[in-house]
Amino acid sequence: MGTLLDLDLPAPELTAHLCDLASPSGEEGPLADAVEAALRSVGHLRVDRHGDTVVARTALGRPTRVVLAGHLDTVPVAGNQPTRLDGGVLWGRGTVDMKGGVAVGLRLAAHVPAPVSDVTYVFYDNEEVEAERNGLGRVAREHPDWLAADFAVLMEPTSAAVEGGCNGTLRVAVELTGTAAHSARWWMGSNAIHAAGPVLRRLADHQPATVTVDGLDYREGLNAVGISGGIAGNVIPDRCEVTVNYRFAPAKTEAEAFDHVRQVLDGYDVRLLDTAPGARPGLDRPVAAAFVAAVGGEPRAKVGWTDVARFDALGVPAVNYGPGDPQLAHADDERVDVAEIVTCETRLRAWLTTLAPVEGRAHRRGLGAGGSHESSVESERDWSE
Amino acid sequence: MGTLLDLDLPAPELTAHLCDLASPSGEEGPLADAVEAALRSVGHLRVDRHGDTVVARTALGRPTRVVLAGHLDTVPVAGNQPTRLDGGVLWGRGTVDMKGGVAVGLRLAAHVPAPVSDVTYVFYDNEEVEAERNGLGRVAREHPDWLAADFAVLMEPTSAAVEGGCNGTLRVAVELTGTAAHSARWWMGSNAIHAAGPVLRRLADHQPATVTVDGLDYREGLNAVGISGGIAGNVIPDRCEVTVNYRFAPAKTEAEAFDHVRQVLDGYDVRLLDTAPGARPGLDRPVAAAFVAAVGGEPRAKVGWTDVARFDALGVPAVNYGPGDPQLAHADDERVDVAEIVTCETRLRAWLTTLAPVEGRAHRRGLGAGGSHESSVESERDWSE
Repeated sequence: MGTLLDLDLPAPELTAHLCDLASPSGEEGPLADAVEAALRSVGHLRVDRHGDTVVARTALGRPTRVVLAGHLDTVPVAGNQPTRLDGGVLWGRGTVDMKGGVAVGLRLAAHVPAPVSDVTYVFYDNEEVEAERNGLGRVAREHPDWLAADFAVLMEPTSAAVEGGCNGTLRVAVELTGTAAHSARWWMGSNAIHAAGPVLRRLADHQPATVTVDGLDYREGLNAVGISGGIAGNVIPDRCEVTVNYRFAPAKTEAEAFDHVRQVLDGYDVRLLDTAPGARPGLDRPVAAAFVAAVGGEPRAKVGWTDVARFDALGVPAVNYGPGDPQLAHADDERVDVAEIVTCETRLRAWLTTLAPVEGRAHRRGLGAGGSHESSVESERDWSE
Repeated sequence: MGTLLDLDLPAPELTAHLCDLASPSGEEGPLADAVEAALRSVGHLRVDRHGDTVVARTALGRPTRVVLAGHLDTVPVAGNQPTRLDGGVLWGRGTVDMKGGVAVGLRLAAHVPAPVSDVTYVFYDNEEVEAERNGLGRVAREHPDWLAADFAVLMEPTSAAVEGGCNGTLRVAVELTGTAAHSARWWMGSNAIHAAGPVLRRLADHQPATVTVDGLDYREGLNAVGISGGIAGNVIPDRCEVTVNYRFAPAKTEAEAFDHVRQVLDGYDVRLLDTAPGARPGLDRPVAAAFVAAVGGEPRAKVGWTDVARFDALGVPAVNYGPGDPQLAHADDERVDVAEIVTCETRLRAWLTTLAPVEGRAHRRGLGAGGSHESSVESERDWSE
């Protein structure tokens, strides 16, 4: 006997209800059951489930198909449950990341029976943990056809602004080697930490590019994010390792990005640690332009890595758009202005019900079958916001 | 009923016997008992004991007094016990560091009843571990009068060469600070690891001095021995710490040495971690000159830190001189050419029995009373060789 979700509740109340059904990563089962049951009760949707990911699709034969996706899990509760509403602000775990977005998605799924594009609603598990557990990635590998579309909206918190695509990211280790010696006889050795100086200089001097992709400006970055070296207080170190993170515009492939880092650090031993591709925003497509026109505001580039990259890997351009201030995600004082939830629902409903320009999507179907488009990133969770 | 030591055994056999009485740091008790008993059976010595440190002194009223000192402990046995003699080479733990020296000292204590200088023989515990346990340091604090002398010979392995004094050493932490930020929005932060680049450059560019002290050339060194920084693979680090070790000639005080490091790293946050003073070789003194003349060879400066600095802190110049290759100390294949042990005994005996020029010592007595001259080093063991 599972929990019943009432999709007729206003989105803010539904958000509170969803938040009070605690679902930290790995424990989404009861919430996924409730979501599945609620969506199956909606007559106009085909519902599929894989693990704790629920996918519901209209099948109206529209010339375009769009995805609205949100994850069901949250980071662990930190004394911030149940939710409380105070002066139009809803406080508690999940209010920002991202049950407000989930509530909006569920409301639209139930109450927009005849969208101008076919719509695929995706509610997935394990976004907040290591990449291999990510429900969206799992469905992308095992049922890529469930995700085929012309455009996707990931309802991560963006303060109800359109953040298109995302930068890619990769990490390399730069290893400096030397010769160990007693530091009293330092001239018998070669100091690997000293050898890291010119590497840090190159990184500090490097002028990262800003690359315009589909009309959005992606600011790149190349930074040391870790350094370690040293054996003991009386030993000349024979090894020092600098970890470097490159955030690269979605115009570059992962291979091109790695080449760039090797060029900047030419002459050094540069080893790839992990990588995740960027995602183009696809705002040059009519279906995306219609989205931007419907929700309003000036789209901006997403510089952090998000699951939009999983859609891009399937050939589906994607943007981030959802209620809540991303700076409050995961915070103990996580909270959302409920008006923002209502705004997102209103604007997305307008988009789904406003006639969009026609764009074929057949040429995209089948892209990304299997896992071949999956990134080799070890823990994409590290990248995501 | 303790072990009996036969000080009539030739020094190589006595060395083997001493090595076979395992005495890793903290477990010197039975060996100290045996040493004390053997020395008490020698009629011409006054014997004192403090913990597992045994001090035996002649009291002949000579115008000068010299010290011969060696530690009783070893690093842990590593499958290299008992000793074995093979073609004139004695293998096993302690053969180099430093029971060969201890055997020589015990032999001289027993068999040189009328040295030209009064002699203080010191056999001490816990040299191979943290500074606060060091038996020589303990006696220097609690019974500095036991160690009063004009000159000291520390019988650490030097391959039977005179290594005078020692460099001082200090460590500082250089802390770089910045502002943390998500590495996708690196421009919101300030990279503390990048800020370490110029510090490493200064260290690499620094030309350390060679300083002549009492006729010996002390080569200084300034080196990064550790670096650490970084929070996570997706975060601009707000902190990076470089640990720097400065080896400074015994012409400098610890305060002067710290000032020098602060000058080299002017503009940075430099924090003193620990320090140990150097020791002047004192080879300009007649008693030391007589020593060098007696044992032969060209004296050289000791660049590593040793317990000679404890004597210097008491106003007693000191040199290192003993059998065994210091590169084999602590090695699993620790071994000594027994001829070197015999050579050391012969030369030290010649020194102790050759009339030395007169030098008053009264002006030195009482220096270093109490712990005020003790170094503030946290773990001098880190420095010693």
